[in-house]
Amino acid sequence: MTNQTTFIAGDWGTSNLRLYLCEYRANGQSQILETRYGPGVSQLNGDFEEKIFSLIQPWLAHHPNAPVLLSGMIGSTIGWKEAPYLTCPASVEQIANGRLSFTARGTSFSILAGLRTINPLGNPDVMRGEELQMLGWLNSQTTPPSEQLFALPGTHNKWTMIRGQQVENFLTAFTGELFALLKNNSILVTNHDELSFNHESFMLGVSTAERLGSASLLHGLFSTRAKQVLGDMPSADAQAYLSGMIIATDVIGARSLWPDSSSVVVIAEQALSERYASVLEHFDLNAQCGDPASIAVQGYAAIYQQLFA
Amino acid sequence: MTNQTTFIAGDWGTSNLRLYLCEYRANGQSQILETRYGPGVSQLNGDFEEKIFSLIQPWLAHHPNAPVLLSGMIGSTIGWKEAPYLTCPASVEQIANGRLSFTARGTSFSILAGLRTINPLGNPDVMRGEELQMLGWLNSQTTPPSEQLFALPGTHNKWTMIRGQQVENFLTAFTGELFALLKNNSILVTNHDELSFNHESFMLGVSTAERLGSASLLHGLFSTRAKQVLGDMPSADAQAYLSGMIIATDVIGARSLWPDSSSVVVIAEQALSERYASVLEHFDLNAQCGDPASIAVQGYAAIYQQLFA
Repeated sequence: MTNQTTFIAGDWGTSNLRLYLCEYRANGQSQILETRYGPGVSQLNGDFEEKIFSLIQPWLAHHPNAPVLLSGMIGSTIGWKEAPYLTCPASVEQIANGRLSFTARGTSFSILAGLRTINPLGNPDVMRGEELQMLGWLNSQTTPPSEQLFALPGTHNKWTMIRGQQVENFLTAFTGELFALLKNNSILVTNHDELSFNHESFMLGVSTAERLGSASLLHGLFSTRAKQVLGDMPSADAQAYLSGMIIATDVIGARSLWPDSSSVVVIAEQALSERYASVLEHFDLNAQCGDPASIAVQGYAAIYQQLFA
Repeated sequence: MTNQTTFIAGDWGTSNLRLYLCEYRANGQSQILETRYGPGVSQLNGDFEEKIFSLIQPWLAHHPNAPVLLSGMIGSTIGWKEAPYLTCPASVEQIANGRLSFTARGTSFSILAGLRTINPLGNPDVMRGEELQMLGWLNSQTTPPSEQLFALPGTHNKWTMIRGQQVENFLTAFTGELFALLKNNSILVTNHDELSFNHESFMLGVSTAERLGSASLLHGLFSTRAKQVLGDMPSADAQAYLSGMIIATDVIGARSLWPDSSSVVVIAEQALSERYASVLEHFDLNAQCGDPASIAVQGYAAIYQQLFA
């Protein structure tokens, strides 16, 4: 064991594969040396081994002993090999130990376990891959807080509570997929041109969601249409209005489920992080934003440290 | 003026045209003599006059003086001629007088006005055509109540409050279109076979919505997926579960907006009426169901009475 070594990490989701060649440092942090992209699980007909070796072969040529850590839907029933779901609360040790490990073409692979929970609404819930973001964020803090609420916006936003450095609980909100369905397939948004994002319309959507009270998003959505029909809103602004209403509904609901959290760590691509931060701040919650790729790598580093360092 | 006469009524919406040859009776009620169906507004390239005469010509041959009353999207910007939106509260007299009237090929046409309001959430809202259902229901009651809440489930459910025989206010819930989007285009429902409707799964969806509390539908939807992934629910039951969650969310929201209403008149096709009635009764609200076609005709009769009787 040297105090500097190399491993390969992969976030292999339904739609995308992101592979990182990483250098692990003795301080427990890692650095990305190179990045490669590939097809998601749903785009391959079971040719997972073939595909990943075509991508990592050049790296293995220089680092023949680098182990490969994979997370995400690659461990699901539609993936390469099925890794279990661990029950929350789950620590980094449990996630590392719950992995499925095997050897292919002489290389050591680990597919990380997913997580399952009964969420704060009493519903069963699942995640695969997002846990690396929380572990990575914790790993990058010099003094991690005793508890922290996270939002991981995307197709299915994961609201996650970390307590005592464990993933204590989480809830999946259908935010991103619902927005995409309404934007692309409903009567609410009919102007699909390339549009500049109108922040004022976005905040109008936020205040509409705020006014819903004990009514539901279901009762606010049609206002997107009515405002256009009555000439109160140009059709070009409907997307931003709808985005504001949906993100604010998501934030209001999460605030009611974790009422003691006054700060939220948002991990998403920049434009989406900024929208969430606007809404969180509107509701007097402090928002810290982070970049998913670099944070995820610190999560893989934490797992690497458990298993190999 | 005889004490028995004939008129033609048409509910001309976006997707369908329903035409009725009606006999108006001196008691203010009407009877459907014949029904004909045609294409909706969105399916015609402006050939509205041509289309309607091809359908009503046989009726006009026997009843050359029958006036034609049309309601629905035929009076919108995508329709034949644009009728105004009247501001609520609106009485049957105001709706009758707000019509757009004209003569085509010697026949008298009236396109009824739509309604606009600021709904109980403070959002602008619109309807075109559904007002006939409330007017028809009132017209069919020997002693109409001083106020009555209505649900008109469909693509866009209209919750409507009638007070003092006026359409006082209404709110459009996005229930039907949202259910269709989630059923057909989301990851929540992947089994699209012809399925029998599982009432137990439907009621499980209802109790899931009940548990949401101050969280939103957005936070309950993903449970449809998680239950299937974890083996708690067969994929064949996901539609019924989702339907229960969405309809219950709609009912819970409406109950919060009109807390003093203990009974709801539901006007929709039978299967949908029964689902709403199940949910309303679950939440201790009394449900009365009615058939849309026969009730609408009493609405046209009320307008006919104002204009021609």
